[in-house]
Amino acid sequence: MQQQQEQRQSENTQQRVQTTSKNKLGVVSKALTKPKRVNVLDRWLLRRMSALVGHPPFIASLWDGVEYMHQTELPAVAHVKFKDRGAMYWFLIDPELHFGDLYSTGRLEVEGDLLKFLEVAYKSLAVSLADNMFSKMVKTWVNRRPKANSLHASRHNIHHHYDLSNKFYELWLDKAATQYTCAYFPDPNMSLEEAQIAKLHHVCRKLQLKPGDSVVEAGCGWGGLSRFMAKNYGVTVKAYNISHEQIVYARSRALQEGLSDKVEYIEDDYRNIQGEYDVFVSVGMLEHIGNRGYSALGEVVDRCLKPDGRGLVHSIGRNFPGPMNAWIEKRIFPGAYPPSIKEMMDIFEPFNFSVQDVENLRLHYSRTLEHWRQRFEDNLDIIREDFDETFIRAWRLYLVGSLAAFNNSDLQLFQIVFTRATHNELPWSRAHLYSPAD
Amino acid sequence: MQQQQEQRQSENTQQRVQTTSKNKLGVVSKALTKPKRVNVLDRWLLRRMSALVGHPPFIASLWDGVEYMHQTELPAVAHVKFKDRGAMYWFLIDPELHFGDLYSTGRLEVEGDLLKFLEVAYKSLAVSLADNMFSKMVKTWVNRRPKANSLHASRHNIHHHYDLSNKFYELWLDKAATQYTCAYFPDPNMSLEEAQIAKLHHVCRKLQLKPGDSVVEAGCGWGGLSRFMAKNYGVTVKAYNISHEQIVYARSRALQEGLSDKVEYIEDDYRNIQGEYDVFVSVGMLEHIGNRGYSALGEVVDRCLKPDGRGLVHSIGRNFPGPMNAWIEKRIFPGAYPPSIKEMMDIFEPFNFSVQDVENLRLHYSRTLEHWRQRFEDNLDIIREDFDETFIRAWRLYLVGSLAAFNNSDLQLFQIVFTRATHNELPWSRAHLYSPAD
Repeated sequence: MQQQQEQRQSENTQQRVQTTSKNKLGVVSKALTKPKRVNVLDRWLLRRMSALVGHPPFIASLWDGVEYMHQTELPAVAHVKFKDRGAMYWFLIDPELHFGDLYSTGRLEVEGDLLKFLEVAYKSLAVSLADNMFSKMVKTWVNRRPKANSLHASRHNIHHHYDLSNKFYELWLDKAATQYTCAYFPDPNMSLEEAQIAKLHHVCRKLQLKPGDSVVEAGCGWGGLSRFMAKNYGVTVKAYNISHEQIVYARSRALQEGLSDKVEYIEDDYRNIQGEYDVFVSVGMLEHIGNRGYSALGEVVDRCLKPDGRGLVHSIGRNFPGPMNAWIEKRIFPGAYPPSIKEMMDIFEPFNFSVQDVENLRLHYSRTLEHWRQRFEDNLDIIREDFDETFIRAWRLYLVGSLAAFNNSDLQLFQIVFTRATHNELPWSRAHLYSPAD
Repeated sequence: MQQQQEQRQSENTQQRVQTTSKNKLGVVSKALTKPKRVNVLDRWLLRRMSALVGHPPFIASLWDGVEYMHQTELPAVAHVKFKDRGAMYWFLIDPELHFGDLYSTGRLEVEGDLLKFLEVAYKSLAVSLADNMFSKMVKTWVNRRPKANSLHASRHNIHHHYDLSNKFYELWLDKAATQYTCAYFPDPNMSLEEAQIAKLHHVCRKLQLKPGDSVVEAGCGWGGLSRFMAKNYGVTVKAYNISHEQIVYARSRALQEGLSDKVEYIEDDYRNIQGEYDVFVSVGMLEHIGNRGYSALGEVVDRCLKPDGRGLVHSIGRNFPGPMNAWIEKRIFPGAYPPSIKEMMDIFEPFNFSVQDVENLRLHYSRTLEHWRQRFEDNLDIIREDFDETFIRAWRLYLVGSLAAFNNSDLQLFQIVFTRATHNELPWSRAHLYSPAD
């Protein structure tokens, strides 16, 4: 059944990539021409390529069927097929960056379990890069380039991803609150809807919301959290976002649900937040502001949080500083950077905030991505009405690649609760987060 | 009643400081001579002194009764009496460092509530130092000097504090497990004994101990945690400490309790830890290793933790990098440094450890110190059998000053749980920390 589906997808790819076009992600689909015969150099490069990525247990083959696999006791996890010479050359130049484009356009095919393939590939590549001094230097240099997203660049980057189409996201996100961030699975068998609601409660409880509190939200997505807070915890919310499509959607939902007097959606950058609030919350925005923007965020919080205020930042992160996967940063999330805890502390330490609680929800993101991936594949027929096969293959790679990264611990998910230093009305334990649901 | 007690203490002080001697903390008690008459310069300096420390609402008076208080609407919190000209001069040179010695030797007296006085003084001094560019530069410079404690210096520093006398510590620490670290009060009305047992369970649950696990403990104090783990969780422990007195005590207790086959106490530096373990734990040692020793600690953990191992570090910390109170660092805890979370990350990030959980227990340390302080004062008669009044006043200042620092949020208490990056057998929530006691 799955094999049939994959074969159908593969046929579709063949059809689609016969045109030259630039799709919504900016990937150029080149017309395929009949590739030239494999020569001695090609064969030599095939072996070099295996060494470059750390000799993972993959069969690699060229356009005329020539195969290579490095001698290993491990069985082959996958079969990687290069469809033309250019594909191999591009891959050799920068595997991390170009693999994504080559896969999206079908110039490179992976047979076997894509998730297992990516998990093994990321691990192998990490070891290989660590051993390769030149690659290491490049990585370090890339990493040290501090990233800051200007107001204009932020708008452009966010438009690229979040203004794709609300309909598209609704097809594979949860139906409960349209959350495009990590869900919380205290029971791993929960449905995606249950887990997203559990996440929203977990966030609200960590923030100790009480009726009448004023909340400001930085980066509100489709507004699910702010409506949930207003409805279930009796608070008022001002929610900021620079994605026009999302703000329009959020306002319309608030109107439908009779929450327009409780929740105000503001189409503006978080740096322009005005007013004073009992609570600051930001779920899934930090990843987009770049590692030079943290103290600016700290300044905003310092300006807008009342003396007894509470705050929460929820973000994808890393165990140590390092850049986002190059292809994801180029095609999926321009300007994105997942920080380490050390880097995140630049939000809090310069302003004498007290970090009260940090929770790492890494495997909850794996679970979330499994659900998203399944729903994405289940809805391909509808997605194809609006998007071409290159887009679909890119998105598949992004979802499965992210799942592999969380499984492998290349990415983490940190929820950080903080208060002003002198706020002494703290709960005596975190037990209130684990009492039966209200 | 309390007043009588204070008066008696004051009289005792007068008697004791009439001798010149160097006590266990290295504080020189100088014989008091009849101070010279207050002159115009003294009066001018009295006013300057108030400005230097940020004009707190204190009455300050000189040796002949001349008083000064900066005009303020606040009522006076305390009355600070300088007993001789030298006391005032030493104070002016470095209030933070010399206040402690002057108070200990009775050359400076505080009338009123010592805790309130210190809370207000620390706040006022912090604001004043922030406004004073010179002081700020000095502070910054002091702060930037990285501290590393060599094996020899560590032994000397730890001997200074922990080898004072087991009998002394037993007088005011809990009777349950002789814990000289922050207790855990999920119910603030718990006794000290209950709260220390709650802390030990909290640590063991965070580490997910299971029977048969091997544990290594870095800096084990009097061995309370390791015996508790062996007895209640069926694990074996190797516990390292460089305090000879503590190791002797710990071994004798393990023998009494029939735990010698489960717990091995090793008189050695944590840097010499050998072997591989399921669990690494360190409660209250990090404060003593200095802010240049964290990556060395990370190396030790990386060397000794099994692939599916768990670790916990419990330490006094700060909201932002800064030195320990100068007097405490000189007289009470030589070589001590409370790190910020950002600094603590140097243990974990270079070795790709995943931080799973950070909990800030600041107000639990306030509560712990309230208990210690009360027991210390209740046992003064016994303490006086072995220690002079200068030591007692120094220790009182240290306990009350620490309480003020935790109340004011100048100090925090961080518990950090971590694992190796690829350890995927993680609990799906932290609810297991909050289930009813076993």
